[in-house]
Amino acid sequence: MLEELKEKVCEANLALVRHGLATLTWGNASAIDRGKGLAVIKPSGVDYASMRPEDMVVVDMDGKVAEGRYRPSSDTPTHLVLYKAFPTIGGVVHTHSAHATAWAQAARPIPNLGTTHADTFHTDVPVTDEIPDDRIRAAYEEATGDTIVETFRRLGIDPDETPAAIAVHHGPFTWGRTVEKAVENAVVLEEVAKIAALTVALNPSAQMNPALVEKHYSRKHGPNAYYGQIAR
Amino acid sequence: MLEELKEKVCEANLALVRHGLATLTWGNASAIDRGKGLAVIKPSGVDYASMRPEDMVVVDMDGKVAEGRYRPSSDTPTHLVLYKAFPTIGGVVHTHSAHATAWAQAARPIPNLGTTHADTFHTDVPVTDEIPDDRIRAAYEEATGDTIVETFRRLGIDPDETPAAIAVHHGPFTWGRTVEKAVENAVVLEEVAKIAALTVALNPSAQMNPALVEKHYSRKHGPNAYYGQIAR
Amino acid sequence: MLEELKEKVCEANLALVRHGLATLTWGNASAIDRGKGLAVIKPSGVDYASMRPEDMVVVDMDGKVAEGRYRPSSDTPTHLVLYKAFPTIGGVVHTHSAHATAWAQAARPIPNLGTTHADTFHTDVPVTDEIPDDRIRAAYEEATGDTIVETFRRLGIDPDETPAAIAVHHGPFTWGRTVEKAVENAVVLEEVAKIAALTVALNPSAQMNPALVEKHYSRKHGPNAYYGQIAR
Amino acid sequence: MLEELKEKVCEANLALVRHGLATLTWGNASAIDRGKGLAVIKPSGVDYASMRPEDMVVVDMDGKVAEGRYRPSSDTPTHLVLYKAFPTIGGVVHTHSAHATAWAQAARPIPNLGTTHADTFHTDVPVTDEIPDDRIRAAYEEATGDTIVETFRRLGIDPDETPAAIAVHHGPFTWGRTVEKAVENAVVLEEVAKIAALTVALNPSAQMNPALVEKHYSRKHGPNAYYGQIAR
Repeated sequence: MLEELKEKVCEANLALVRHGLATLTWGNASAIDRGKGLAVIKPSGVDYASMRPEDMVVVDMDGKVAEGRYRPSSDTPTHLVLYKAFPTIGGVVHTHSAHATAWAQAARPIPNLGTTHADTFHTDVPVTDEIPDDRIRAAYEEATGDTIVETFRRLGIDPDETPAAIAVHHGPFTWGRTVEKAVENAVVLEEVAKIAALTVALNPSAQMNPALVEKHYSRKHGPNAYYGQIAR
Repeated sequence: MLEELKEKVCEANLALVRHGLATLTWGNASAIDRGKGLAVIKPSGVDYASMRPEDMVVVDMDGKVAEGRYRPSSDTPTHLVLYKAFPTIGGVVHTHSAHATAWAQAARPIPNLGTTHADTFHTDVPVTDEIPDDRIRAAYEEATGDTIVETFRRLGIDPDETPAAIAVHHGPFTWGRTVEKAVENAVVLEEVAKIAALTVALNPSAQMNPALVEKHYSRKHGPNAYYGQIAR
Repeated sequence: MLEELKEKVCEANLALVRHGLATLTWGNASAIDRGKGLAVIKPSGVDYASMRPEDMVVVDMDGKVAEGRYRPSSDTPTHLVLYKAFPTIGGVVHTHSAHATAWAQAARPIPNLGTTHADTFHTDVPVTDEIPDDRIRAAYEEATGDTIVETFRRLGIDPDETPAAIAVHHGPFTWGRTVEKAVENAVVLEEVAKIAALTVALNPSAQMNPALVEKHYSRKHGPNAYYGQIAR
Repeated sequence: MLEELKEKVCEANLALVRHGLATLTWGNASAIDRGKGLAVIKPSGVDYASMRPEDMVVVDMDGKVAEGRYRPSSDTPTHLVLYKAFPTIGGVVHTHSAHATAWAQAARPIPNLGTTHADTFHTDVPVTDEIPDDRIRAAYEEATGDTIVETFRRLGIDPDETPAAIAVHHGPFTWGRTVEKAVENAVVLEEVAKIAALTVALNPSAQMNPALVEKHYSRKHGPNAYYGQIAR
């Protein structure tokens, strides 16, 4: 069942380790098959060292296991909320990478302070609102997804243009058209989180030029993009 | 004598190097066989590169060498105090990992500022009280263990729920049901110490939500835990 | 066409990865053949893992592709401006290395605070002036080169003596007599950017001794240089 | 000539790279044969990747090359001053390791803030006095050695008990009974410089307990040392 997608999801999870974004069993990546209405996600708390494609878990849109001998990641409900709310995305990644997590713990959005950020994220990477205590107690992971969606709506941010959020007191979530792209966005997020922290230490009132934000984002995205090779 | 435990303790010490927690010959890990009343610990000041299971030292509960051609770690008395005071633990680890040591030198507890911390440590990781000068001069290593135990009692912290302390001006100690778990806790401690330092630089008054502390700790611990796979 | 130079440029780009200066497909290195009036540069957005000399792109001084099946780096116009304005240089490198980029985002020059800096860069490494919005929108990459050149002229800095600039809100550019030397200068720049950030955190008013600046720069450069081996 | 010492010095220089203390060709290690009145030192500006024992340079106590086809490190006069002033030392190491260099650039001694420091260095690691401009211009490297010696005398620090100094605006020098020990001290110095920087960021008025300084230094040094194995 979904063998090709399991291979991609397994490889994406292992890429988190290779990129230095995962400590111990932390972090998880998933992908969705929108035609079948099924998602493939990392099993909960399993060692990266021995992880294989057949260990991936297939769940339906309610989080019910459709295939797999392991329990799915405890963050599965968050992934599913994002797939339902953001119809264009094909993959989701969650990590506790150090610098992005520090901004989440500081309850500050990651500011768009340079072209490194603007090349991938069109706006500041938003930090989610606090989750009310009763929602934390009842269905925390689903509520985490909901606050990401609500935060994007409240701020008027397009999730395709800024494919990342930091969940307050928790850590980063990224997404993309594919799970490979979601991993890539997790790598960029940690790097820009690190550079932003170094920047505000050197200049607490550093500010990006809005014209440069538009220029750099449009270099890589949209009809006039000219970074990279022409798709064939 | 205790060959299996020697292998585990040797492997645990080597894991400190692999996880980047040990410089030169620094750091030590031990395990206890409570039935026999014997502990196995790393020899003092021996190179990690050539360390083998048969180099581990077996000591009784008074610190007397029961087997081994080397002298045990000079921190052995600290380990023994912890084994005596915390009856559920099976392994102890001590390192000078950079970020946890910095909090110890700053004489500040490592604050519980996010879910990364709360998943493993139920409270702030306490910093021990100052040791009186006469106890430093007489039996420093034993006094280090005593102040850890006293600090946990004074603050009402359950050592099974927060399996780590930082010894003031010195560095971190972690423990667990097994020595493997004690190593894992040392890895988590260094990571949360690093993220906490980055967090307070971005927001000196950052605060965790108490409901989220309870939620995340109980996701991994206690009767309603749902992180990871069901033990078989 | 220019096979030897393509090998050097490919190797220089791969060296950026080896030195930890390149994330994903970021960064680019080029070299010029001044006799032929042609430059060789990395293709845009291509994976480092599979990059080979034959993937390099040959462009003329107007940026027109003279050979190569890929599109050249989107930063090509910046490289060409530098080759035209700085007649002694043979190679240019651009990265988003974290510490140099943080100074660029902070809009602060990298101060010359010690001999590590002075051995390679005779002055502070200047940060460029803001680029007017209309130039950002019309020909941003060319304007980036122009502001580097203008900043050096305004400050009276010799680009042979301080072979590096940081483009405001963007990141570092370095150059040298050869592309290998430009890579080396990118490595040094990131290291001195890091040490300078650590220094100002410890002492915001740290200052270098001007006599030591002259001494160290002249140890490695000019007629009385005595660092390294005598060229044979 | 001195083949065994050349091997040790070559290996010590390569160890600087392995320990992450050397960028490009930076850093140098030397050893002395006091019986013959000759020192062996790294050649100036030569690649670590291709360095072999036969590339090491033998110099007499005036810095004259006694053997070797390369020019000796430009820092040779500093090493020779230390050998002459500190009669018990057998090896000297100089690096530009990032954290120790940052304290040097900040013109602040590295404070003794914990047992990690006190285990190796009995006092703060002193920063040298400014060198007068005329001495910088005339014989800078010799003057660097002289100010280290003068700083230790002025502060009453025993160079055997605190085998390290940071040269103001420049970087660290360490030494030891052997060149291996000098390398080890360079590793410890960088680590304690890093932890001290993290500490003062968390608590600018952090202070070590003097009784703990004495205890930890004497655990590893002097007649009552009990760290490590008994020499056989």
